[in-house]
Amino acid sequence: MEKTIVEKIFSNKTGSEVKSGDIVSVEVDFAMAQDGTAPLAIRAFEEMDMDVENPEKLALVIDHISPSKSEGASELHQKMRSFASEYGIKLYDVGEGICHQLMLENHVDPGKVIIGADSHTCTYGALGAFATGVGSTDMGAAFATGELWFKVPESIKINVNGELPENVSAKDVILKLCGEIGADGAIYKALEFRGSTIRDMSIASRATLCNMAIEVGAKTGIVEPDQKVEEYTGTSTNLSSDEEADYIENINLDVSELSPQIAVPHQVDNVSDIGEVEGKEIDQVVLGSCTNGRFEDLKRAADVLEGNEVSDQTRFLVFPASKSVYEKAIEEGVIQTFINAGATVCNPGCGPCPGTHMGILAPGERAISTTNRNFQGRMGSTEAEVYLSSPETAAYSGIKGKISDPRRE
Amino acid sequence: MEKTIVEKIFSNKTGSEVKSGDIVSVEVDFAMAQDGTAPLAIRAFEEMDMDVENPEKLALVIDHISPSKSEGASELHQKMRSFASEYGIKLYDVGEGICHQLMLENHVDPGKVIIGADSHTCTYGALGAFATGVGSTDMGAAFATGELWFKVPESIKINVNGELPENVSAKDVILKLCGEIGADGAIYKALEFRGSTIRDMSIASRATLCNMAIEVGAKTGIVEPDQKVEEYTGTSTNLSSDEEADYIENINLDVSELSPQIAVPHQVDNVSDIGEVEGKEIDQVVLGSCTNGRFEDLKRAADVLEGNEVSDQTRFLVFPASKSVYEKAIEEGVIQTFINAGATVCNPGCGPCPGTHMGILAPGERAISTTNRNFQGRMGSTEAEVYLSSPETAAYSGIKGKISDPRRE
Repeated sequence: MEKTIVEKIFSNKTGSEVKSGDIVSVEVDFAMAQDGTAPLAIRAFEEMDMDVENPEKLALVIDHISPSKSEGASELHQKMRSFASEYGIKLYDVGEGICHQLMLENHVDPGKVIIGADSHTCTYGALGAFATGVGSTDMGAAFATGELWFKVPESIKINVNGELPENVSAKDVILKLCGEIGADGAIYKALEFRGSTIRDMSIASRATLCNMAIEVGAKTGIVEPDQKVEEYTGTSTNLSSDEEADYIENINLDVSELSPQIAVPHQVDNVSDIGEVEGKEIDQVVLGSCTNGRFEDLKRAADVLEGNEVSDQTRFLVFPASKSVYEKAIEEGVIQTFINAGATVCNPGCGPCPGTHMGILAPGERAISTTNRNFQGRMGSTEAEVYLSSPETAAYSGIKGKISDPRRE
Repeated sequence: MEKTIVEKIFSNKTGSEVKSGDIVSVEVDFAMAQDGTAPLAIRAFEEMDMDVENPEKLALVIDHISPSKSEGASELHQKMRSFASEYGIKLYDVGEGICHQLMLENHVDPGKVIIGADSHTCTYGALGAFATGVGSTDMGAAFATGELWFKVPESIKINVNGELPENVSAKDVILKLCGEIGADGAIYKALEFRGSTIRDMSIASRATLCNMAIEVGAKTGIVEPDQKVEEYTGTSTNLSSDEEADYIENINLDVSELSPQIAVPHQVDNVSDIGEVEGKEIDQVVLGSCTNGRFEDLKRAADVLEGNEVSDQTRFLVFPASKSVYEKAIEEGVIQTFINAGATVCNPGCGPCPGTHMGILAPGERAISTTNRNFQGRMGSTEAEVYLSSPETAAYSGIKGKISDPRRE
């Protein structure tokens, strides 16, 4: 039987021939919850009155309100710390970084089945894992049993070819795809990213792609693990879709003349070429998040900022995705470039992306953001606007104080 | 007539012989308000229906909730921006740093009369200015008239002599004095810091002393401006108290055997030698604030942290006092030391000191903090505890996970 990567992962896990559509129950290789979801998962777990099955395969991360902005959040953090301590679970405390980046850095290997109580868990497909977001009660059950059931998803083959123009990058590719596929265009499917553009991409760029698979409803995004994945994870694997594997759909994209893409308020799939929204004034730039907060992203933005100054009409907030990203960005002079340009570098974490703190928008304000969602009210006021873009576009727009095309830089 | 520094400043301002107790109305040389107070000052100003008298002598600073944690705060920030823009007033936006540090770096000169709508405005006495906190309505009146009335305060002469032991510093000196003078021991007085210890101190250390003058009720703290002040400000002045000037009180302190001092909950004047509280477990360290967030403070803490790791029971939050402090701390490898030790470096600003965000304590938690107030509920829960200390003590306690004496380091 010819299989997709996803079918192979579940076949390997179950030791049987698994096809898309099958329902399987498998041991979870790793599971993660963050401070928005872990407290609910812990409550669900406690109601089951069981023991934690595989504490060494769990991690809790404090990243959504980190450091805490309120007594309520602090009490939830306390609950996470005491639960982790009681069961011997790894806890990433305040300031370590965003859950998905910490997972990529420390817990993901190709071929693994990983769940996270966060919708952007699909990011880990960049390393050839099957990874998906689950609800807090499912997570509670996984704490107790170490297992979870899945309906093996059908795959959509996304062939991306061509060399990206200068200052056009992975975020533009995935935004373009979000616009074409639509917010409900891939519900419960796996997006398998293939083609020369993907092969040429770094792990960080692939993570940007996979991260936003959920924005078209997909169960996950995944890239065939290659030498780069082996170097990143230290794990060698031979995992690729068979030539004749069954895909439910094929999408082809030539990126050699792709323009910078912008997701216009208030939907991620409301995507325009930058030309259609150029010139709109910007109050705040947000550079960071599990989509675009890795070293590569900060570096791309810093290269645009180098020797320039942020507009005095615009706040420019930078959130490294993890402590090690932050450290490398200092070593490489990237943080210094941000400071010299007038940007504000904040601690590693989610920042204002989920609308919790650290850059909430007032009514009438407009942000350009490298994050993954621009829903109405997502980053503050329901009367504010969030435009999603690449790091390059966000940086260049920050200099100009308005949405601007980084190819002009 | 023999005069104190403070009497000389007001005599120079009015062109007449001014004694303590006199009520004078003088032009304010500079005035500042932050995001907790500026919105109220603006409202008071607007009710007067007048023009801004000296916009070039005003600054507004967004530091207390920076970046914004809520729509309400964001709207106040918007109001500050539009007010500053309308009248041509300097605005320090999100991430520039703490108002008092920005004032020291940019707007304070010896001999000046400066007001701020923040109680720790007294900090600027480190540069030989008369500086004091005022209420928001007084600030609104100063916006409109450029003037304010003062009752010239009597001075307390504080003679500090002796060489500070290793890892004992300015914060220990001022905490010791707070304990001796008491929270209401110097109401409406000026604390004039003198003696060999003060002459040997950097501007940063003097700022730590003057900053906490308000904690004993003083109108201000002040140090005779010397060569160091001239180098810092570029302004030469000949301003010193006369030999026979009238002081209402003399306090003498020999610091050559001073122990690290701790202000124990919930009063700043509830001060103990560290030996009395050593060993108490610590959930959070806060390094920063207008009291101890300057480069010197971060460096002192980093020297203690170097080669060590923060206890995994403790969160260690660092808040550089300004963007230039942050920049210098990167240049000098200090930020790198914090990261290597496991601390979390946040953006310049007030951090959790005023209890607004970025490190709020849960019930039952205990913090050691280099800030200036440990009032019940100040940093979060009323059931939490804040212990005030020097940067050295805070850093060493962070390593040990409990209050620890940095002389043992």
